[in-house]
Amino acid sequence: MLANKNLQLNSLGKLQHFLSIEGLQKSLLTEILDTAESFADMSEQQVKKFPLLRGKTIVNLFFENSTRTRATFELAATRLSADILSMNIATSATSKGESLLDTIRNLEAMQVDMFVVRHSLSGAAHFIAENAAPRISVINAGDGQHEHPTQAMLDMFTIRRVKQSFSGLRIAIVGDILHSRVARSQIHALNILGAEEVRVIAPKTLLPAQVESLGVSVYHDLTVGLKNVDVIIMLRLQKERMNSALLPSESEYFKCFGLSDDKLKIANKDAMVMHPGPINRGVEISSSVADGPQSVILQQVTNGIAVRMAVMSMAMQCNMRTE
Amino acid sequence: MLANKNLQLNSLGKLQHFLSIEGLQKSLLTEILDTAESFADMSEQQVKKFPLLRGKTIVNLFFENSTRTRATFELAATRLSADILSMNIATSATSKGESLLDTIRNLEAMQVDMFVVRHSLSGAAHFIAENAAPRISVINAGDGQHEHPTQAMLDMFTIRRVKQSFSGLRIAIVGDILHSRVARSQIHALNILGAEEVRVIAPKTLLPAQVESLGVSVYHDLTVGLKNVDVIIMLRLQKERMNSALLPSESEYFKCFGLSDDKLKIANKDAMVMHPGPINRGVEISSSVADGPQSVILQQVTNGIAVRMAVMSMAMQCNMRTE
Amino acid sequence: MLANKNLQLNSLGKLQHFLSIEGLQKSLLTEILDTAESFADMSEQQVKKFPLLRGKTIVNLFFENSTRTRATFELAATRLSADILSMNIATSATSKGESLLDTIRNLEAMQVDMFVVRHSLSGAAHFIAENAAPRISVINAGDGQHEHPTQAMLDMFTIRRVKQSFSGLRIAIVGDILHSRVARSQIHALNILGAEEVRVIAPKTLLPAQVESLGVSVYHDLTVGLKNVDVIIMLRLQKERMNSALLPSESEYFKCFGLSDDKLKIANKDAMVMHPGPINRGVEISSSVADGPQSVILQQVTNGIAVRMAVMSMAMQCNMRTE
Repeated sequence: MLANKNLQLNSLGKLQHFLSIEGLQKSLLTEILDTAESFADMSEQQVKKFPLLRGKTIVNLFFENSTRTRATFELAATRLSADILSMNIATSATSKGESLLDTIRNLEAMQVDMFVVRHSLSGAAHFIAENAAPRISVINAGDGQHEHPTQAMLDMFTIRRVKQSFSGLRIAIVGDILHSRVARSQIHALNILGAEEVRVIAPKTLLPAQVESLGVSVYHDLTVGLKNVDVIIMLRLQKERMNSALLPSESEYFKCFGLSDDKLKIANKDAMVMHPGPINRGVEISSSVADGPQSVILQQVTNGIAVRMAVMSMAMQCNMRTE
Repeated sequence: MLANKNLQLNSLGKLQHFLSIEGLQKSLLTEILDTAESFADMSEQQVKKFPLLRGKTIVNLFFENSTRTRATFELAATRLSADILSMNIATSATSKGESLLDTIRNLEAMQVDMFVVRHSLSGAAHFIAENAAPRISVINAGDGQHEHPTQAMLDMFTIRRVKQSFSGLRIAIVGDILHSRVARSQIHALNILGAEEVRVIAPKTLLPAQVESLGVSVYHDLTVGLKNVDVIIMLRLQKERMNSALLPSESEYFKCFGLSDDKLKIANKDAMVMHPGPINRGVEISSSVADGPQSVILQQVTNGIAVRMAVMSMAMQCNMRTE
Repeated sequence: MLANKNLQLNSLGKLQHFLSIEGLQKSLLTEILDTAESFADMSEQQVKKFPLLRGKTIVNLFFENSTRTRATFELAATRLSADILSMNIATSATSKGESLLDTIRNLEAMQVDMFVVRHSLSGAAHFIAENAAPRISVINAGDGQHEHPTQAMLDMFTIRRVKQSFSGLRIAIVGDILHSRVARSQIHALNILGAEEVRVIAPKTLLPAQVESLGVSVYHDLTVGLKNVDVIIMLRLQKERMNSALLPSESEYFKCFGLSDDKLKIANKDAMVMHPGPINRGVEISSSVADGPQSVILQQVTNGIAVRMAVMSMAMQCNMRTE
């Protein structure tokens, strides 16, 4: 933990890498949210272009496919005027038998400034940050079942924009907690930012062992868990889990853990409905809720760009100061 | 028809989307040609770069593969200084089961400004334009067998550059009219711009029912149809049609409907030869004609960039005015 | 030869295309190295961006996959502010049956300024340069077993940076000379630039017939060939050769022709170790040598960008002067 914490911050305590929410201070998360706020305001202008990262090269290292996350990182980098090098890893040098470390060393030698890493193995981004040259920043865009910190921060940003503050808030995270790196990052962020209560609502088969140790209260019944809740975060149900005997049918799942209009009424009247996308309509959420007035699902997408611009520019400015 | 017409224009009657030629006024088509003229002149300069769409994000939504059309749209956008987000739809979120509408909603939420859409279904671009946020422009880069309006406009531009005016012109469109969205758009454009006569020359199996209602005269014999013609537009023969029993062998097709030097002599002495590309040499056109002095096939490609720059900048400036 | 030489130079004797090292003058190679030197210095600045090719369009025509070469050309072009059009040829128009020449004609018609060509057939880049419009520059990024001139020049640049001069230098090129376009370009460059001796060290099965005619001395024993050598260039062993009965097992190959710490001691004490990458650790080179103090393998990657920026800008400025 301590090692991770140090790894993310430079000697001045500023963000150098963004790998996990766990181990970061509230002040740093708040700085990210405040920086994102200024980008969000500016993004409503006609010309959404800022010269902050002009002449910097950002490498998209996506070992796992993700249209949406990749597109928002690409747009964030483009709007900061950075140059982007997209590596299609599946068809690249690694297929010639080169190791991950050799790939990293070679990209470093091309004088790139940042890696945005998505990988199916937990810890991949940490590994790269540990081994990269000191002048390089690494952003974790999702690693295995570990963390997805920019997704969590865009969720925090979306909550703060609506609710102003985290104090007093009750948040329920519903669905496949076991396999969700998004949930793990959200739980850490909500606890660090001072939410009143973080609940997880899931069948036992979709909860990690000793989940309470993360600082959550556990519910197995959606109709109970949603009571008095201010924010509902629905998780995407990975279809591939379905076949793994962890779950009954889709319609059975929706009946128990899907968010319908009726279920939504159990929560507080002004409860926000969130989802990291892409949504499975009729599986974890009904269309009427997803498209309804309490849903902020598309605002999350918009906010994702401002938050990624904030994280990227903070990590890079930090480098500038220390060089 | 009326609905479509309104859909393409904003409340001031200016171009917002470019979906089909059908239903547009002559004055608007002429405005596109005039705007393209200025881009064509500027493109001969050393630095082919204009800041008109700086800070704007254009999404290439190609559900159907097309190297050439995609490259010219990409170059047009790049030369207007826009940012481009290319979505490889086949391997993207839609493969996670997301609907087209959800994909559109999410891209909108990323604050993009324009969709360039190519789809194998007729009406796909209209559907997106109908459902997109009002601030977004949609350009149809080919939808099923319906229309391919920028291709038609680059053809009109190429004709006007050579012939000065459409009045008095006889144009023959030769080949697979039935499946050609290009032909459909060309026929509308030529009639709107006031051509003297639009002929289609094709075997009966490659003509739509009641084709005359589009405002064309019909010929089944190339040696008859080319008489007194000023412009010959050859269509690409889709190889996949060959196997569908609609057609005899390639050499048989060339004998009847291919453009050879001998056939070309039947047309007016200064007749222009056009083709949307890529050409099948020896199938619908001989190499000597394709590469000969009457061919303007490569000028069509060059003009395609200027015309796409015109359409893109018109659609976007329109947005600026109305916001 | 003479034809090739003329083809690469314009009427003023300046570089227009960069297709092969063979046939070029020492003064031109030195000009490339000197120009690269200035880009290398500038690349250490915070903002690695130069407006030299602003508004120019460079087409990456990679018929053969290569992550590293493609990435360094892309970064070089980006840092010169050029626009890049990447053509994925495998899935493009050529799959619609279009010929290479028609593809080139069409790209030319899009008013592009440069082709960077990689192709599995020797002579592909020459063919394109011969057939392209006079205003276009062609850079060979590797053609069959013929040449890979920018790789050779980045190697020369790396040697000159360390050794100051080529006079008096003994260079050994070790491995699969037979199939290596890199080796062929390196041999020409070293001889033109005045190296004392160029040695090739390889089993007989991996040497071309009459290799001595290229101006090299031939060794079949690594322990003999490395004596008194100042620069050791290890070639990548293509795994696919392994299965072709040209070679024994990987471990057998390493024993005879792999560079280990022990073998390295045979060369001069300050001998540089080079490799075009990606390396096969434990096949042609041990990890301790590849990562050791005499290795300049990663500097080669860094220098590759400066050298490609030099070649690109020289070829394009040349065009500007003659237009």
